[in-house]
Amino acid sequence: MLSATDNHKPESLVANANSSYFPIINNQIHLLRPQSGSGGSYTKGLSCLSWRFGVESNNVIGWKTIPVTCEDYIGHYMLGSQYRKDSKVITNEAILYAKSINLSKNGKDVWIFDIDETTLSNLPHYAQHGFGYVEPFNATSFNTWVGTGKAPALPESVKLYRELVSLGVKVVFLTGRTEDQRTVTETNLKRAGYHTWDKLLLKGKEFSGKTAVAYKSAQRKKVEEEYGYRIIGNKGDQWSDLLGTNTGLRTFKLPDPMYYIS
Amino acid sequence: MLSATDNHKPESLVANANSSYFPIINNQIHLLRPQSGSGGSYTKGLSCLSWRFGVESNNVIGWKTIPVTCEDYIGHYMLGSQYRKDSKVITNEAILYAKSINLSKNGKDVWIFDIDETTLSNLPHYAQHGFGYVEPFNATSFNTWVGTGKAPALPESVKLYRELVSLGVKVVFLTGRTEDQRTVTETNLKRAGYHTWDKLLLKGKEFSGKTAVAYKSAQRKKVEEEYGYRIIGNKGDQWSDLLGTNTGLRTFKLPDPMYYIS
Repeated sequence: MLSATDNHKPESLVANANSSYFPIINNQIHLLRPQSGSGGSYTKGLSCLSWRFGVESNNVIGWKTIPVTCEDYIGHYMLGSQYRKDSKVITNEAILYAKSINLSKNGKDVWIFDIDETTLSNLPHYAQHGFGYVEPFNATSFNTWVGTGKAPALPESVKLYRELVSLGVKVVFLTGRTEDQRTVTETNLKRAGYHTWDKLLLKGKEFSGKTAVAYKSAQRKKVEEEYGYRIIGNKGDQWSDLLGTNTGLRTFKLPDPMYYIS
Repeated sequence: MLSATDNHKPESLVANANSSYFPIINNQIHLLRPQSGSGGSYTKGLSCLSWRFGVESNNVIGWKTIPVTCEDYIGHYMLGSQYRKDSKVITNEAILYAKSINLSKNGKDVWIFDIDETTLSNLPHYAQHGFGYVEPFNATSFNTWVGTGKAPALPESVKLYRELVSLGVKVVFLTGRTEDQRTVTETNLKRAGYHTWDKLLLKGKEFSGKTAVAYKSAQRKKVEEEYGYRIIGNKGDQWSDLLGTNTGLRTFKLPDPMYYIS
Protein backbone atom coordinates (compact mmCIF):
# COMPACT_ATOMS: atom_id res chain seq x y z
CA MET A 1 0.00 0.00 0.00
CA LEU A 2 1.25 3.44 -0.86
CA SER A 3 1.87 5.73 2.02
CA ALA A 4 3.19 9.24 2.09
CA THR A 5 6.51 8.01 3.42
CA ASP A 6 7.14 5.27 0.85
CA ASN A 7 10.04 5.59 -1.53
CA HIS A 8 7.96 6.01 -4.66
CA LYS A 9 8.74 4.25 -7.90
CA PRO A 10 6.76 6.30 -10.38
CA GLU A 11 7.39 3.89 -13.26
CA SER A 12 5.56 1.08 -11.58
CA LEU A 13 2.76 3.40 -10.55
CA VAL A 14 2.34 4.49 -14.12
CA ALA A 15 2.38 0.90 -15.32
CA ASN A 16 -0.66 0.42 -13.11
CA ALA A 17 -2.28 3.62 -14.28
CA ASN A 18 -5.66 1.98 -14.58
CA SER A 19 -5.69 0.69 -11.02
CA SER A 20 -6.18 2.92 -8.02
CA TYR A 21 -2.77 3.91 -6.84
CA PHE A 22 -4.03 6.39 -4.29
CA PRO A 23 -5.90 4.00 -2.01
CA ILE A 24 -7.90 5.20 0.96
CA ILE A 25 -5.38 5.56 3.77
CA ASN A 26 -7.49 6.28 6.80
CA ASN A 27 -4.53 5.90 9.10
CA GLN A 28 -2.86 8.84 7.39
CA ILE A 29 -5.65 11.25 8.07
CA HIS A 30 -5.19 11.53 11.82
CA LEU A 31 -1.57 12.44 11.28
CA LEU A 32 -2.57 15.67 9.63
CA ARG A 33 -2.06 18.80 11.61
CA PRO A 34 -4.98 21.13 12.24
CA GLN A 35 -5.48 24.01 9.86
CA SER A 36 -5.39 27.59 10.96
CA GLY A 37 -6.61 29.34 7.85
CA SER A 38 -10.12 30.19 6.86
CA GLY A 39 -10.14 29.32 3.15
CA GLY A 40 -12.74 31.80 2.19
CA SER A 41 -14.24 34.18 4.61
CA TYR A 42 -16.74 32.10 6.59
CA THR A 43 -16.58 28.68 8.11
CA LYS A 44 -19.56 28.46 10.45
CA GLY A 45 -21.78 25.60 9.38
CA LEU A 46 -19.85 25.33 6.14
CA SER A 47 -20.49 22.26 3.99
CA CYS A 48 -17.06 21.10 2.82
CA LEU A 49 -18.65 19.64 -0.29
CA SER A 50 -20.14 23.06 -1.02
CA TRP A 51 -16.78 24.69 -0.42
CA ARG A 52 -15.20 22.28 -2.86
CA PHE A 53 -17.94 23.04 -5.40
CA GLY A 54 -17.24 26.74 -4.86
CA VAL A 55 -13.53 26.24 -5.50
CA GLU A 56 -13.88 24.04 -8.56
CA SER A 57 -16.44 26.33 -10.18
CA ASN A 58 -14.15 29.34 -9.68
CA ASN A 59 -16.52 31.00 -7.24
CA VAL A 60 -14.33 30.75 -4.15
CA ILE A 61 -11.09 32.46 -5.09
CA GLY A 62 -7.99 33.95 -3.54
CA TRP A 63 -7.87 31.60 -0.54
CA LYS A 64 -4.60 30.88 1.26
CA THR A 65 -5.50 27.76 3.23
CA ILE A 66 -8.34 25.28 3.30
CA PRO A 67 -11.12 25.87 5.85
CA VAL A 68 -10.16 24.62 9.30
CA THR A 69 -13.27 22.44 9.48
CA CYS A 70 -12.54 20.76 6.13
CA GLU A 71 -9.13 19.29 6.81
CA ASP A 72 -10.41 15.74 7.33
CA TYR A 73 -12.80 16.08 4.42
CA ILE A 74 -10.11 17.24 1.98
CA GLY A 75 -7.68 14.60 3.25
CA HIS A 76 -10.18 11.82 2.71
CA TYR A 77 -11.17 13.28 -0.64
CA MET A 78 -7.59 13.45 -1.92
CA LEU A 79 -6.52 10.02 -0.66
CA GLY A 80 -9.84 8.35 -1.33
CA SER A 81 -11.57 7.35 -4.53
CA GLN A 82 -13.54 10.53 -5.27
CA TYR A 83 -10.53 12.58 -6.36
CA ARG A 84 -9.60 9.86 -8.81
CA LYS A 85 -13.18 9.46 -10.03
CA ASP A 86 -13.43 13.21 -10.62
CA SER A 87 -10.12 13.18 -12.47
CA LYS A 88 -11.35 10.29 -14.61
CA VAL A 89 -14.56 12.05 -15.67
CA ILE A 90 -12.59 15.11 -16.76
CA THR A 91 -9.96 13.08 -18.55
CA ASN A 92 -12.50 10.90 -20.33
CA GLU A 93 -14.13 14.08 -21.63
CA ALA A 94 -10.73 15.29 -22.82
CA ILE A 95 -9.99 12.02 -24.62
CA LEU A 96 -13.40 11.97 -26.30
CA TYR A 97 -12.87 15.57 -27.34
CA ALA A 98 -9.35 14.93 -28.70
CA LYS A 99 -10.61 12.00 -30.75
CA SER A 100 -13.53 14.03 -32.08
CA ILE A 101 -11.73 17.00 -33.60
CA ASN A 102 -10.24 17.34 -37.03
CA LEU A 103 -6.50 17.41 -36.48
CA SER A 104 -4.56 19.58 -38.85
CA LYS A 105 -2.08 16.77 -39.73
CA ASN A 106 0.67 19.34 -40.12
CA GLY A 107 2.27 18.59 -36.76
CA LYS A 108 1.20 21.96 -35.42
CA ASP A 109 -1.59 20.83 -33.09
CA VAL A 110 -0.52 20.95 -29.47
CA TRP A 111 -1.98 20.21 -26.09
CA ILE A 112 -0.92 22.25 -23.06
CA PHE A 113 -0.43 20.42 -19.79
CA ASP A 114 0.22 22.09 -16.48
CA ILE A 115 2.59 19.99 -14.34
CA ASP A 116 1.87 20.05 -10.61
CA GLU A 117 -1.42 18.30 -9.71
CA THR A 118 -2.04 17.83 -13.44
CA THR A 119 0.80 15.86 -14.99
CA LEU A 120 2.55 14.96 -11.74
CA SER A 121 0.99 14.50 -8.32
CA ASN A 122 2.51 16.05 -5.22
CA LEU A 123 0.10 14.20 -2.99
CA PRO A 124 2.89 12.38 -1.13
CA HIS A 125 4.19 15.82 -0.16
CA TYR A 126 0.85 17.42 0.67
CA ALA A 127 -0.24 14.40 2.69
CA GLN A 128 2.61 15.27 5.06
CA HIS A 129 1.64 18.93 5.14
CA GLY A 130 -2.06 18.91 5.93
CA PHE A 131 -3.58 19.01 2.41
CA GLY A 132 -3.72 22.73 1.98
CA TYR A 133 -1.24 23.57 4.66
CA VAL A 134 -1.26 24.66 8.24
CA GLU A 135 0.09 27.90 6.89
CA PRO A 136 0.03 29.46 3.45
CA PHE A 137 2.07 27.72 0.76
CA ASN A 138 5.65 27.08 1.89
CA ALA A 139 7.93 27.34 -1.13
CA THR A 140 11.05 26.02 0.61
CA SER A 141 9.40 22.82 1.75
CA PHE A 142 7.69 22.35 -1.62
CA ASN A 143 10.89 22.93 -3.59
CA THR A 144 12.74 20.38 -1.46
CA TRP A 145 10.06 17.88 -2.45
CA VAL A 146 10.29 18.90 -6.15
CA GLY A 147 14.05 18.40 -5.92
CA THR A 148 13.62 14.73 -5.11
CA GLY A 149 12.16 14.21 -8.60
CA LYS A 150 9.91 11.53 -7.17
CA ALA A 151 6.45 12.91 -7.84
CA PRO A 152 4.28 10.14 -9.29
CA ALA A 153 2.13 10.70 -12.35
CA LEU A 154 -1.54 11.49 -12.10
CA PRO A 155 -2.55 8.27 -13.88
CA GLU A 156 -5.45 9.91 -15.75
CA SER A 157 -3.09 12.44 -17.29
CA VAL A 158 -0.66 9.73 -18.41
CA LYS A 159 -3.62 8.10 -20.13
CA LEU A 160 -4.57 11.33 -21.92
CA TYR A 161 -0.92 12.00 -22.78
CA ARG A 162 -0.57 8.58 -24.42
CA GLU A 163 -3.77 9.08 -26.40
CA LEU A 164 -2.57 12.44 -27.63
CA VAL A 165 0.84 11.13 -28.63
CA SER A 166 -0.81 8.29 -30.53
CA LEU A 167 -3.08 10.80 -32.28
CA GLY A 168 -0.04 12.81 -33.36
CA VAL A 169 -0.77 15.76 -31.10
CA LYS A 170 2.32 17.54 -29.78
CA VAL A 171 2.67 18.07 -26.04
CA VAL A 172 3.74 21.28 -24.32
CA PHE A 173 4.27 21.35 -20.57
CA LEU A 174 3.67 24.80 -19.10
CA THR A 175 4.50 25.11 -15.43
CA GLY A 176 5.01 27.60 -12.64
CA ARG A 177 8.15 25.66 -11.69
CA THR A 178 11.21 27.80 -12.25
CA GLU A 179 14.05 27.42 -14.77
CA ASP A 180 16.45 26.10 -12.11
CA GLN A 181 14.11 23.13 -11.70
CA ARG A 182 14.36 22.14 -15.38
CA THR A 183 16.64 19.13 -15.03
CA VAL A 184 14.87 17.55 -12.09
CA THR A 185 11.53 18.20 -13.76
CA GLU A 186 12.66 16.53 -16.99
CA THR A 187 13.91 13.55 -15.03
CA ASN A 188 10.72 13.35 -13.01
CA LEU A 189 8.49 13.58 -16.10
CA LYS A 190 10.37 10.72 -17.77
CA ARG A 191 10.31 8.57 -14.65
CA ALA A 192 6.57 9.16 -14.41
CA GLY A 193 5.93 7.95 -17.96
CA TYR A 194 6.07 11.13 -20.03
CA HIS A 195 8.87 10.20 -22.38
CA THR A 196 8.65 12.86 -25.04
CA TRP A 197 7.41 16.41 -25.44
CA ASP A 198 7.83 19.36 -27.72
CA LYS A 199 8.39 22.12 -25.19
CA LEU A 200 8.88 22.29 -21.46
CA LEU A 201 8.13 25.90 -20.50
CA LEU A 202 9.30 26.88 -17.03
CA LYS A 203 9.01 30.25 -15.33
CA GLY A 204 11.96 32.45 -16.14
CA LYS A 205 13.11 35.45 -14.12
CA GLU A 206 11.34 37.81 -16.55
CA PHE A 207 8.01 36.56 -15.19
CA SER A 208 8.99 36.94 -11.55
CA GLY A 209 6.18 38.57 -9.62
CA LYS A 210 3.65 38.07 -12.42
CA THR A 211 0.43 36.15 -11.73
CA ALA A 212 0.08 32.67 -13.15
CA VAL A 213 -2.68 33.94 -15.45
CA ALA A 214 -0.36 36.61 -16.92
CA TYR A 215 2.67 34.30 -17.13
CA LYS A 216 0.81 31.39 -18.69
CA SER A 217 -1.13 33.59 -21.11
CA ALA A 218 2.14 35.12 -22.34
CA GLN A 219 3.70 31.70 -22.82
CA ARG A 220 0.66 30.34 -24.65
CA LYS A 221 0.65 33.40 -26.87
CA LYS A 222 4.26 32.63 -27.76
CA VAL A 223 3.33 29.02 -28.47
CA GLU A 224 0.67 30.14 -30.91
CA GLU A 225 2.14 33.28 -32.45
CA GLU A 226 5.89 32.62 -32.34
CA TYR A 227 6.03 28.86 -32.69
CA GLY A 228 2.95 28.69 -34.93
CA TYR A 229 1.07 26.03 -33.01
CA ARG A 230 -2.68 25.64 -32.63
CA ILE A 231 -3.60 24.87 -29.01
CA ILE A 232 -6.38 22.33 -29.29
CA GLY A 233 -6.61 21.54 -25.59
CA ASN A 234 -5.38 22.80 -22.25
CA LYS A 235 -5.49 20.85 -19.00
CA GLY A 236 -4.74 22.14 -15.54
CA ASP A 237 -5.83 21.96 -11.93
CA GLN A 238 -6.01 25.74 -11.42
CA TRP A 239 -8.35 28.18 -13.15
CA SER A 240 -5.25 30.31 -13.67
CA ASP A 241 -4.03 27.58 -16.04
CA LEU A 242 -7.16 27.99 -18.14
CA LEU A 243 -8.11 31.67 -18.08
CA GLY A 244 -6.53 34.66 -19.81
CA THR A 245 -5.58 34.68 -23.48
CA ASN A 246 -4.71 31.91 -25.94
CA THR A 247 -6.45 29.43 -23.67
CA GLY A 248 -6.91 26.83 -26.39
CA LEU A 249 -9.94 25.48 -28.22
CA ARG A 250 -11.13 23.75 -25.08
CA THR A 251 -9.97 23.63 -21.47
CA PHE A 252 -10.16 20.93 -18.83
CA LYS A 253 -10.15 21.68 -15.11
CA LEU A 254 -8.88 18.93 -12.83
CA PRO A 255 -9.91 19.02 -9.18
CA ASP A 256 -7.63 20.63 -6.63
CA PRO A 257 -9.05 21.64 -3.26
CA MET A 258 -5.57 21.90 -1.68
CA TYR A 259 -4.30 25.25 -2.88
CA TYR A 260 -5.19 28.28 -4.99
CA ILE A 261 -2.91 30.06 -7.47
CA SER A 262 -4.09 33.30 -9.03
CA MET B 1 -44.46 20.60 3.23
CA LEU B 2 -43.89 21.86 -0.27
CA SER B 3 -44.59 19.41 -3.01
CA ALA B 4 -44.33 19.81 -6.73
CA THR B 5 -48.11 19.97 -7.01
CA ASP B 6 -48.72 22.62 -4.36
CA ASN B 7 -50.17 25.94 -5.35
CA HIS B 8 -47.10 27.99 -4.54
CA LYS B 9 -47.26 31.28 -2.74
CA PRO B 10 -43.92 32.79 -3.63
CA GLU B 11 -44.39 35.73 -1.26
CA SER B 12 -44.52 33.54 1.78
CA LEU B 13 -41.62 31.46 0.52
CA VAL B 14 -39.56 34.58 0.13
CA ALA B 15 -40.56 35.78 3.55
CA ASN B 16 -38.95 32.60 4.82
CA ALA B 17 -35.91 33.02 2.63
CA ASN B 18 -33.58 32.08 5.44
CA SER B 19 -35.28 28.79 6.17
CA SER B 20 -35.14 25.78 3.91
CA TYR B 21 -38.11 26.00 1.62
CA PHE B 22 -37.03 23.11 -0.58
CA PRO B 23 -37.18 20.31 2.01
CA ILE B 24 -36.12 16.78 1.24
CA ILE B 25 -39.12 15.14 -0.37
CA ASN B 26 -38.15 11.53 -0.67
CA ASN B 27 -41.62 10.51 -1.69
CA GLN B 28 -41.32 12.67 -4.81
CA ILE B 29 -38.27 10.91 -6.11
CA HIS B 30 -39.91 7.63 -7.05
CA LEU B 31 -42.45 9.49 -9.13
CA LEU B 32 -39.76 10.56 -11.54
CA ARG B 33 -39.70 8.87 -14.87
CA PRO B 34 -36.55 7.07 -16.02
CA GLN B 35 -34.13 8.99 -18.17
CA SER B 36 -33.20 7.93 -21.65
CA GLY B 37 -30.35 10.31 -22.39
CA SER B 38 -26.68 9.82 -21.81
CA GLY B 39 -25.65 13.26 -20.50
CA GLY B 40 -22.11 13.07 -21.66
CA SER B 41 -20.76 10.19 -23.61
CA TYR B 42 -20.22 7.48 -21.01
CA THR B 43 -22.25 6.22 -18.14
CA LYS B 44 -20.66 2.89 -17.17
CA GLY B 45 -19.51 3.08 -13.56
CA LEU B 46 -20.05 6.84 -13.59
CA SER B 47 -19.93 8.65 -10.26
CA CYS B 48 -22.84 11.08 -10.28
CA LEU B 49 -20.92 13.36 -7.94
CA SER B 50 -18.06 13.37 -10.45
CA TRP B 51 -20.48 14.09 -13.27
CA ARG B 52 -21.86 17.02 -11.30
CA PHE B 53 -18.32 18.27 -10.66
CA GLY B 54 -17.67 17.96 -14.38
CA VAL B 55 -20.75 20.01 -15.21
CA GLU B 56 -20.21 22.74 -12.64
CA SER B 57 -16.55 23.17 -13.59
CA ASN B 58 -17.50 23.55 -17.28
CA ASN B 59 -15.74 20.33 -18.25
CA VAL B 60 -18.82 18.34 -19.24
CA ILE B 61 -20.55 20.43 -21.88
CA GLY B 62 -23.15 20.18 -24.62
CA TRP B 63 -25.28 17.53 -22.89
CA LYS B 64 -29.00 17.17 -23.67
CA THR B 65 -30.16 15.07 -20.72
CA ILE B 66 -28.75 13.96 -17.42
CA PRO B 67 -27.10 10.51 -17.27
CA VAL B 68 -29.65 7.73 -16.95
CA THR B 69 -27.95 6.42 -13.82
CA CYS B 70 -28.00 9.82 -12.09
CA GLU B 71 -31.71 10.55 -12.08
CA ASP B 72 -32.21 9.63 -8.41
CA TYR B 73 -28.99 11.38 -7.46
CA ILE B 74 -29.92 14.65 -9.17
CA GLY B 75 -33.45 14.49 -7.80
CA HIS B 76 -32.22 14.06 -4.26
CA TYR B 77 -29.59 16.74 -4.81
CA MET B 78 -32.08 19.31 -6.09
CA LEU B 79 -34.78 18.64 -3.49
CA GLY B 80 -32.40 18.01 -0.64
CA SER B 81 -30.15 20.29 1.34
CA GLN B 82 -26.97 20.14 -0.76
CA TYR B 83 -28.32 22.26 -3.61
CA ARG B 84 -29.25 24.94 -1.11
CA LYS B 85 -25.94 24.68 0.73
CA ASP B 86 -24.05 25.04 -2.55
CA SER B 87 -26.19 28.03 -3.48
CA LYS B 88 -25.47 29.58 -0.09
CA VAL B 89 -21.69 29.27 -0.40
CA ILE B 90 -21.77 30.98 -3.79
CA THR B 91 -24.12 33.69 -2.64
CA ASN B 92 -22.16 34.39 0.53
CA GLU B 93 -19.07 34.88 -1.63
CA ALA B 94 -21.04 37.27 -3.82
CA ILE B 95 -22.28 39.28 -0.84
CA LEU B 96 -18.79 39.50 0.68
CA TYR B 97 -17.46 40.59 -2.69
CA ALA B 98 -20.18 43.23 -3.20
CA LYS B 99 -19.50 44.68 0.24
CA SER B 100 -15.75 44.72 -0.39
CA ILE B 101 -15.56 46.75 -3.57
CA ASN B 102 -15.41 50.48 -3.99
CA LEU B 103 -18.72 51.43 -5.49
CA SER B 104 -18.66 54.34 -7.89
CA LYS B 105 -21.53 56.16 -6.09
CA ASN B 106 -22.71 57.56 -9.42
CA GLY B 107 -25.60 55.11 -9.77
CA LYS B 108 -23.86 53.38 -12.65
CA ASP B 109 -22.79 50.17 -10.90
CA VAL B 110 -25.00 47.27 -11.90
CA TRP B 111 -25.29 43.61 -11.12
CA ILE B 112 -26.51 41.21 -13.80
CA PHE B 113 -28.84 38.41 -12.74
CA ASP B 114 -29.95 35.59 -14.96
CA ILE B 115 -33.55 34.61 -14.18
CA ASP B 116 -34.30 30.88 -14.47
CA GLU B 117 -32.54 28.79 -11.79
CA THR B 118 -30.83 32.00 -10.61
CA THR B 119 -33.42 34.58 -9.63
CA LEU B 120 -36.43 32.30 -9.88
CA SER B 121 -36.54 28.55 -9.36
CA ASN B 122 -38.37 26.26 -11.74
CA LEU B 123 -37.87 23.30 -9.47
CA PRO B 124 -41.63 22.71 -9.07
CA HIS B 125 -41.74 22.26 -12.85
CA TYR B 126 -38.60 20.15 -13.21
CA ALA B 127 -39.61 17.92 -10.29
CA GLN B 128 -42.54 16.84 -12.45
CA HIS B 129 -40.32 16.31 -15.48
CA GLY B 130 -37.51 14.15 -14.23
CA PHE B 131 -34.89 16.78 -13.27
CA GLY B 132 -33.16 17.05 -16.60
CA TYR B 133 -35.93 15.52 -18.64
CA VAL B 134 -36.78 12.20 -20.11
CA GLU B 135 -36.15 13.90 -23.40
CA PRO B 136 -34.22 17.01 -24.35
CA PHE B 137 -35.66 20.32 -23.14
CA ASN B 138 -39.33 20.71 -24.01
CA ALA B 139 -40.04 24.38 -24.70
CA THR B 140 -43.83 24.01 -24.85
CA SER B 141 -44.10 22.39 -21.46
CA PHE B 142 -41.61 24.84 -19.94
CA ASN B 143 -43.36 27.88 -21.39
CA THR B 144 -46.69 26.70 -20.01
CA TRP B 145 -45.04 26.63 -16.59
CA VAL B 146 -43.49 30.09 -17.11
CA GLY B 147 -46.95 31.37 -18.08
CA THR B 148 -48.31 30.53 -14.63
CA GLY B 149 -46.00 33.18 -13.15
CA LYS B 150 -45.67 31.05 -10.04
CA ALA B 151 -41.96 30.28 -9.95
CA PRO B 152 -40.68 30.82 -6.41
CA ALA B 153 -37.52 32.79 -5.74
CA LEU B 154 -34.21 31.09 -5.14
CA PRO B 155 -33.94 32.41 -1.55
CA GLU B 156 -30.18 32.96 -1.75
CA SER B 157 -30.63 35.24 -4.75
CA VAL B 158 -33.31 37.28 -2.98
CA LYS B 159 -30.82 37.75 -0.17
CA LEU B 160 -28.11 38.95 -2.55
CA TYR B 161 -30.62 41.14 -4.38
CA ARG B 162 -31.63 42.86 -1.15
CA GLU B 163 -28.02 43.43 -0.16
CA LEU B 164 -27.26 44.95 -3.55
CA VAL B 165 -30.29 47.24 -3.45
CA SER B 166 -29.29 48.41 0.03
CA LEU B 167 -25.75 49.07 -1.23
CA GLY B 168 -27.14 51.20 -4.04
CA VAL B 169 -26.21 48.79 -6.80
CA LYS B 170 -28.60 48.74 -9.74
CA VAL B 171 -30.06 45.43 -10.87
CA VAL B 172 -30.35 44.19 -14.45
CA PHE B 173 -32.15 40.95 -15.22
CA LEU B 174 -30.85 39.29 -18.37
CA THR B 175 -32.77 36.22 -19.46
CA GLY B 176 -33.26 33.82 -22.33
CA ARG B 177 -36.99 34.21 -21.80
CA THR B 178 -38.55 35.88 -24.82
CA GLU B 179 -40.16 39.32 -25.19
CA ASP B 180 -43.68 37.83 -25.22
CA GLN B 181 -43.02 36.61 -21.67
CA ARG B 182 -42.26 40.10 -20.37
CA THR B 183 -45.49 40.75 -18.48
CA VAL B 184 -45.70 37.39 -16.77
CA THR B 185 -42.00 37.59 -15.90
CA GLU B 186 -42.43 41.03 -14.34
CA THR B 187 -45.38 39.79 -12.33
CA ASN B 188 -43.50 36.70 -11.24
CA LEU B 189 -40.39 38.65 -10.20
CA LYS B 190 -42.48 40.99 -8.05
CA ARG B 191 -44.42 38.12 -6.47
CA ALA B 192 -41.11 36.45 -5.66
CA GLY B 193 -39.74 39.48 -3.84
CA TYR B 194 -37.85 41.38 -6.55
CA HIS B 195 -39.71 44.64 -6.40
CA THR B 196 -37.50 46.95 -8.41
CA TRP B 197 -34.93 46.76 -11.16
CA ASP B 198 -33.29 48.96 -13.73
CA LYS B 199 -33.63 46.80 -16.83
CA LEU B 200 -35.33 43.55 -17.66
CA LEU B 201 -33.66 42.31 -20.82
CA LEU B 202 -35.52 39.54 -22.64
CA LYS B 203 -34.61 37.79 -25.86
CA GLY B 204 -35.94 39.64 -28.87
CA LYS B 205 -36.49 38.15 -32.31
CA GLU B 206 -33.18 39.65 -33.51
CA PHE B 207 -31.35 37.12 -31.32
CA SER B 208 -33.38 34.16 -32.52
CA GLY B 209 -31.07 31.24 -33.25
CA LYS B 210 -28.09 32.83 -31.47
CA THR B 211 -26.41 30.99 -28.61
CA ALA B 212 -26.93 32.24 -25.10
CA VAL B 213 -23.25 33.25 -24.95
CA ALA B 214 -23.64 35.44 -28.05
CA TYR B 215 -27.02 36.87 -27.02
CA LYS B 216 -26.01 37.63 -23.45
CA SER B 217 -22.63 39.08 -24.43
CA ALA B 218 -24.34 41.42 -26.87
CA GLN B 219 -26.82 42.57 -24.23
CA ARG B 220 -24.09 43.10 -21.61
CA LYS B 221 -22.09 45.06 -24.14
CA LYS B 222 -25.10 47.30 -24.64
CA VAL B 223 -25.47 47.68 -20.86
CA GLU B 224 -21.88 48.86 -20.60
CA GLU B 225 -21.34 50.77 -23.83
CA GLU B 226 -24.79 52.15 -24.61
CA TYR B 227 -26.25 52.60 -21.14
CA GLY B 228 -22.90 53.47 -19.56
CA TYR B 229 -23.07 51.04 -16.67
CA ARG B 230 -20.18 49.23 -14.99
CA ILE B 231 -21.03 45.56 -14.43
CA ILE B 232 -19.58 44.78 -11.03
CA GLY B 233 -21.04 41.30 -10.71
CA ASN B 234 -22.83 38.68 -12.78
CA LYS B 235 -24.69 35.70 -11.38
CA GLY B 236 -26.08 32.78 -13.31
CA ASP B 237 -26.57 29.03 -13.23
CA GLN B 238 -25.12 28.41 -16.71
CA TRP B 239 -21.57 29.02 -17.86
CA SER B 240 -23.17 30.68 -20.90
CA ASP B 241 -24.39 33.39 -18.50
CA LEU B 242 -20.81 34.09 -17.45
CA LEU B 243 -18.59 33.58 -20.50
CA GLY B 244 -18.13 35.73 -23.60
CA THR B 245 -17.57 39.47 -23.48
CA ASN B 246 -18.47 42.14 -20.92
CA THR B 247 -18.82 39.42 -18.29
CA GLY B 248 -18.43 41.80 -15.37
CA LEU B 249 -15.73 42.33 -12.76
CA ARG B 250 -16.56 39.02 -11.16
CA THR B 251 -18.91 36.15 -11.97
CA PHE B 252 -20.79 33.71 -9.76
CA LYS B 253 -21.87 30.28 -10.96
CA LEU B 254 -24.85 28.74 -9.20
CA PRO B 255 -25.28 24.97 -9.39
CA ASP B 256 -27.52 23.48 -12.06
CA PRO B 257 -27.15 19.82 -12.92
CA MET B 258 -30.57 19.70 -14.66
CA TYR B 259 -29.89 21.25 -18.04
CA TYR B 260 -27.20 22.75 -20.22
CA ILE B 261 -27.51 25.89 -22.35
CA SER B 262 -24.66 26.78 -24.71
